[in-house]
Amino acid sequence: MKCDRLWTNARIATCSPSLAGLGVVEDGVVATSAGRIVWCGPRMAFDHAVTADETIDCGGRWITPGLIDCHTHLIFAGDRSDEFARRLTGETYADIARGGGGIVASMRATRAARPADLHDMAERRLRAWRAEGVTTVEIKSGYGLDAVTECSILATARALGAHGAMRVMSTYLGAHAVPPDQGRASYLDLVCDHMIPRIAQENLADAVDGFCETIAFTATEIDRVLTAARAQHLPVKLHADQLSDSGGAALAARFTALSADHLEYAADAGLEAMAAVGTVAVVLPGAYYVLRESKAPPIASMRRAGCTIAIATDCNPGTSPIMSLRLAAHMACVFFGLTFDEAWRGITLNAAAALGIAAETGSIEIGKSCDLAIWDAENLAEILAWIGPAPLHQRVLKGRDV
Amino acid sequence: MKCDRLWTNARIATCSPSLAGLGVVEDGVVATSAGRIVWCGPRMAFDHAVTADETIDCGGRWITPGLIDCHTHLIFAGDRSDEFARRLTGETYADIARGGGGIVASMRATRAARPADLHDMAERRLRAWRAEGVTTVEIKSGYGLDAVTECSILATARALGAHGAMRVMSTYLGAHAVPPDQGRASYLDLVCDHMIPRIAQENLADAVDGFCETIAFTATEIDRVLTAARAQHLPVKLHADQLSDSGGAALAARFTALSADHLEYAADAGLEAMAAVGTVAVVLPGAYYVLRESKAPPIASMRRAGCTIAIATDCNPGTSPIMSLRLAAHMACVFFGLTFDEAWRGITLNAAAALGIAAETGSIEIGKSCDLAIWDAENLAEILAWIGPAPLHQRVLKGRDV
Repeated sequence: MKCDRLWTNARIATCSPSLAGLGVVEDGVVATSAGRIVWCGPRMAFDHAVTADETIDCGGRWITPGLIDCHTHLIFAGDRSDEFARRLTGETYADIARGGGGIVASMRATRAARPADLHDMAERRLRAWRAEGVTTVEIKSGYGLDAVTECSILATARALGAHGAMRVMSTYLGAHAVPPDQGRASYLDLVCDHMIPRIAQENLADAVDGFCETIAFTATEIDRVLTAARAQHLPVKLHADQLSDSGGAALAARFTALSADHLEYAADAGLEAMAAVGTVAVVLPGAYYVLRESKAPPIASMRRAGCTIAIATDCNPGTSPIMSLRLAAHMACVFFGLTFDEAWRGITLNAAAALGIAAETGSIEIGKSCDLAIWDAENLAEILAWIGPAPLHQRVLKGRDV
Repeated sequence: MKCDRLWTNARIATCSPSLAGLGVVEDGVVATSAGRIVWCGPRMAFDHAVTADETIDCGGRWITPGLIDCHTHLIFAGDRSDEFARRLTGETYADIARGGGGIVASMRATRAARPADLHDMAERRLRAWRAEGVTTVEIKSGYGLDAVTECSILATARALGAHGAMRVMSTYLGAHAVPPDQGRASYLDLVCDHMIPRIAQENLADAVDGFCETIAFTATEIDRVLTAARAQHLPVKLHADQLSDSGGAALAARFTALSADHLEYAADAGLEAMAAVGTVAVVLPGAYYVLRESKAPPIASMRRAGCTIAIATDCNPGTSPIMSLRLAAHMACVFFGLTFDEAWRGITLNAAAALGIAAETGSIEIGKSCDLAIWDAENLAEILAWIGPAPLHQRVLKGRDV
């Protein structure tokens, strides 16, 4: 066998589901060819007849799968830091949203921005993810809420992915809020009858998402959105049960959604339905923290139901101004009681599952894309336990240093 | 007048106590000469006859005082990430300390480390503070707990300050824990009768600190330590009332301590006594977060008493593995309800007061050291509201770019 690159002398947390724990391989080797993993395992088992164009001695460093942030809203313009200050004086997210702040404030600024500026701002933000070993980021639209701006945001997400330094998954979240310049019914018509078919035809998104909540859309309205998505063969996701039990978890399961996200108020039956169809439960501790919520997502029920649990930043300019997936994982441990192993899986393989790409990335296994994070750390716990700059040595996407 | 450098076209948050709010000057100018601020104010009031060797157009950027982290333990060896994982399974800080973990675990690793390695590890950590616009950091000893290692840590702190890129204030915290290889009484003799006089004579520390807590030292023991410090004319500080009301706040006030830190369980009378003598209340939300404490420090009582409130990272490898002063400020807002203005003062002027150097730094006022942070931000709120890489443009210490 001949391969392009070979990483040796590494401790590898493969996150392979067929191995116990995080599937750690001591004194391990990873080989890549044409961007894919062609071998991974202990050095002792490696066929030394294999030749490589390049061999990299990792000096005992840890290798994990490249991290995956499966829920962000990181393309936007404008600044909503004032909302943070207002919440410190007692205003709630719902108060602010009803008063024209929140999503609508970002919508106004995003519509007013030039596409090139939207791109550059997002590109600058993405540096924070790169510095933490993230190789895949999902980005949602939803701050345009008209045809032109939503398509522009999705095209920007596609362009950010085309640079080659980050795999970007694009999600259409037209059903984020009703724009104040349009009636509720006519906006839903636009989303379902015009936008979703167009987005499918132009391949602008990998999935369709909706915000099912008292301050956003009802379960009936979201049902229509998800039905329209399914008609176009687009996978669906859902913002579900964040501020109240809106039946979002069950709705997500009924549509075999890739994921249902937030879930603070999700009912046990909904979680069981999700587990039964493989809908991933994505917890978003950043919003929980910033909004000073007191009700954590029902992790015990999720475990009991057998849900796959992922963690994401939910990066957005209002309720989760957080550009650190490691901090999101840390907070999921501290606030929600996830274990370190759950946190690692939640930002690797399970996050890939939440994006429908678990066969492509998220673990270090033969046949998958060679997406790696190589760490200057003595142990895995240290990488997540410390808050601050990530001890990242190198990021690898599709076999290439990026 | 002639000056060395002039920053123009800036929005300046002076944090001057004689101005309202954060003392913001729009379209402002700062002038420095020989490392000190020789002018600061609105451009309109500036004497244009002044010449400068160098004039820097800030392009409308914000300038704040260089940030100050007034409580860290950042010189240590070893890794205690496993304790984080153990606490996730229900063990408490006190459990871990009693079982030989905690401070004693760091002590063993720190004693075993070479001084050059201690220095290099701390220097690497300090990069995180530099990247956030911090110009002054306090560093405590307390992971040596024998004469050689404590002096080595303090000498390392002095060396880190001597590089010129950071003002480092060094604090002797011999009374951090009783080392397991020594009796309680004989260790206190070492601290009070040998170490404190020696440290004063060799100018190894700027202050003396103690850990007054059920799992550390009693108020009576700490009284002896602080008395020994005062005999050497060393200012004192105190870890007070973190896990229980140990009378720490009142004790700190009785010694006119520079600061009393933690204070979750401080009594109102103690806070009033602190306010009366000017002892700064330092809140440490990192430890509160990591230890999942439910009792926040009594901010309302502090405000009522008129306490000066500062915020610090408490960076340490066990209970506050946090290398971000901005995140500490964010958490002080979210967890403790500080306002943004309180947070800004808490990491600038009030933090300087907690170190006894409020006449030297912490605000942008004529006569003080020219310690600045210049930010790529549209507004002040944005700098603290976002978690992730700091929008720092330039850091200035004693008038020089560092």
